[in-house]
Amino acid sequence: MKTKTIPKTLSGFMELDPNDQVLFNKIKDVIESTYKCYGFYPLDTPIIEYSDVLLAKAGGETEKQIYRFLKGDNDLSLRFDMTVPLAKYVAQRYNNLVFPFKRYQIGKVFRGERPQKGRFREFYQCDADAVGSTSLWQEVEFVQLYDAVFTALGLKETTIKINNRKILSGIAEVIGAKDKLIDFTVALDKLDKIGEDKVKEEMLDKGIPQAGIEALQPLFGLSGSFDAQIEQLKSILSTSEEGRKGIEELEFINQAISGLGLESANLQLDVTLARGLNYYTGAIFEVSAPKGVAMGSIGGGGRYDDLTGIFGLKDMSGVGISFGLDRIYLVLEELNLFPETITENIKALFINFGDQEALFCLKAIKALRSVDIKVELYPDAAKMKKQMQYADKRNIPYVVLVGEEEMRANEYTLKNMKSGEQEKLTLERLTDKLQ
Amino acid sequence: MKTKTIPKTLSGFMELDPNDQVLFNKIKDVIESTYKCYGFYPLDTPIIEYSDVLLAKAGGETEKQIYRFLKGDNDLSLRFDMTVPLAKYVAQRYNNLVFPFKRYQIGKVFRGERPQKGRFREFYQCDADAVGSTSLWQEVEFVQLYDAVFTALGLKETTIKINNRKILSGIAEVIGAKDKLIDFTVALDKLDKIGEDKVKEEMLDKGIPQAGIEALQPLFGLSGSFDAQIEQLKSILSTSEEGRKGIEELEFINQAISGLGLESANLQLDVTLARGLNYYTGAIFEVSAPKGVAMGSIGGGGRYDDLTGIFGLKDMSGVGISFGLDRIYLVLEELNLFPETITENIKALFINFGDQEALFCLKAIKALRSVDIKVELYPDAAKMKKQMQYADKRNIPYVVLVGEEEMRANEYTLKNMKSGEQEKLTLERLTDKLQ
Repeated sequence: MKTKTIPKTLSGFMELDPNDQVLFNKIKDVIESTYKCYGFYPLDTPIIEYSDVLLAKAGGETEKQIYRFLKGDNDLSLRFDMTVPLAKYVAQRYNNLVFPFKRYQIGKVFRGERPQKGRFREFYQCDADAVGSTSLWQEVEFVQLYDAVFTALGLKETTIKINNRKILSGIAEVIGAKDKLIDFTVALDKLDKIGEDKVKEEMLDKGIPQAGIEALQPLFGLSGSFDAQIEQLKSILSTSEEGRKGIEELEFINQAISGLGLESANLQLDVTLARGLNYYTGAIFEVSAPKGVAMGSIGGGGRYDDLTGIFGLKDMSGVGISFGLDRIYLVLEELNLFPETITENIKALFINFGDQEALFCLKAIKALRSVDIKVELYPDAAKMKKQMQYADKRNIPYVVLVGEEEMRANEYTLKNMKSGEQEKLTLERLTDKLQ
Repeated sequence: MKTKTIPKTLSGFMELDPNDQVLFNKIKDVIESTYKCYGFYPLDTPIIEYSDVLLAKAGGETEKQIYRFLKGDNDLSLRFDMTVPLAKYVAQRYNNLVFPFKRYQIGKVFRGERPQKGRFREFYQCDADAVGSTSLWQEVEFVQLYDAVFTALGLKETTIKINNRKILSGIAEVIGAKDKLIDFTVALDKLDKIGEDKVKEEMLDKGIPQAGIEALQPLFGLSGSFDAQIEQLKSILSTSEEGRKGIEELEFINQAISGLGLESANLQLDVTLARGLNYYTGAIFEVSAPKGVAMGSIGGGGRYDDLTGIFGLKDMSGVGISFGLDRIYLVLEELNLFPETITENIKALFINFGDQEALFCLKAIKALRSVDIKVELYPDAAKMKKQMQYADKRNIPYVVLVGEEEMRANEYTLKNMKSGEQEKLTLERLTDKLQ
């Protein structure tokens, strides 16, 4: 029946089997319902935009990776993140939006990178941002939000790492490398991956003076609880006003979170965290999977004091986070954390014994669906065995059998696919049973 | 604060205000939850595919409209429908799928058409298809599904028009224009728009003999109920075997639907319905908005006996429907059918009187959110008036006020934004009240 010309799907473009897609969507639903619960508006901006909008601020990497093409006279690109479209949206509608403007957006973005595990060319970003307020309570709420989502997904012991750009600036200032802040943070960010010696080497290469690098030593030795590290930082950064401001902000967030409590995540100070992104101006977040899972960050974000500056709208502070949906999916799969119930996409299959029986069944099915019980009729009056196999392969927990006898008595035989038990029920009792 | 360089969004690319987006998503949610309730799997295929996959069968119009570009050595395109990707998916995974394979897919597709009211270049398709069974019960269920969605949306008196390709073939046979089936159906499809005389003119132009066109006369006069029209068709098509088969199929569907009943939609036979699409082989569906609303079809679909033939997999019958999400949105807006409650995206705003009060409030907010009550804290300790305006602009029905007095008594003052009434409540009673 099959010939050799099977069409190909592009490499780096996720496409899942039906059961896996159900699990993937479950994660998406949890993130979305949590965003809604926290009061974020849904937003849906176009996938295609003018290239000069998307590339208004972008650097070399983005320009290389972006999907860009001409259509008629228009120079178009596919969005590579949700942040630039958000900035555009806010700049366009500044006069009509209610600030602080809280929005979430879950959708696909496109980057022509080399595909690898947990890195796709077409992938979902799940962003939430609060724009137009500098209040640190936003940061507090984002920490809670991370905790709420991972708790709901059963992914315990995630680590929410937090840092502050002002701390990094303060350190650079203290070691006399204020003009080399970017080089300094890019090197420091690699501490986990390449170790202390190589980080120092890179800093030296970039022209940071030896004396400055030596002054960094206490940083590499930072240890203990959040509070303990804060105390150490206070002494390291005592001479930098910006550094002290960063410490104050971190303390505020940590104290609030201590007062509120987290369900399953840990909040951890990480002064090496820079996320390679230069636009953060305050808090920087990154979430790691539970220990023992080899996967990059599964979430990240931070505060940027000038979201819309690229489009001429000044002084619009934003703070936001993102979930790495594809990676969270891979992590849950690795840890076998998908509850079995999710695969039950339907509750019961009505076996089809012929047109009269089918019509009788569809009346019951209509009633069940009206109270949101997911049931279906096997469409063909095929052999019993084939219909049972279908129920089995789809992991449907019950089948309903209706023959002449049941039709006469106005009853339904409900069979449990696991135990094999069966019982005759009225529609009312059937409804109760499947609910 | 604002400069002149406001970035542009492409014309023909929908982008909504926050409140409108909430309404739009409500429609999407109703369609999706109904698809799930009917037992369809979610599917999510890539937006970008190899051009030779997407264009495997496409004709001239599609090739002109498709967004196509080179990336590296790859000739890529953006999907213009969900049907070709489904065919690809089924051909690729034939050995692993459980048939009948029922899937839905809601996502954006792209067509470089001239934008107009209800026609976008980037728009949502909301498809459901059942693949691998020829059972007419599938058609019956799709009629029910249309009815269920429009009923849930409060859009009453929609008309689900149905026809059958075999009837069109039968008519062409009877009037001696079997070889001109496409020309004949394309002309007939325009009856609503251009009227009887122009349709006849076009048929004559296309080489359909005058005698054949005269033999069509009874068709133009078809009237009465579904059953009455069926009886007239039986006499017109008595000499065509294919035509008789088409009548039989329509009768089956109509009788089943009569037995099951529809909540708010009408099922109507329309022999002129062809949908300009040549791949339907059996049932053809199209849904019209309630009378008086000037909008093209808000849904359509049909049966195609050879879904996957283009990819070398023969004899795979499919039947599917689609909702025109963007148009349904415009129709509901025109009829003012969005319930007020939808705009209540959050239930209560906690007024921020300072850090101590905010922390106290966030503890209550955490408890409320844990039972899925949507509440939020105003992030800044701004002037009362400003915070109340925010609640007002976002249509938030309640605010919660917590000052020193409330903190001492462990109470919350709940104020109704409409009536102005306020009362002091414990957290437990606040929870009950907001639930």
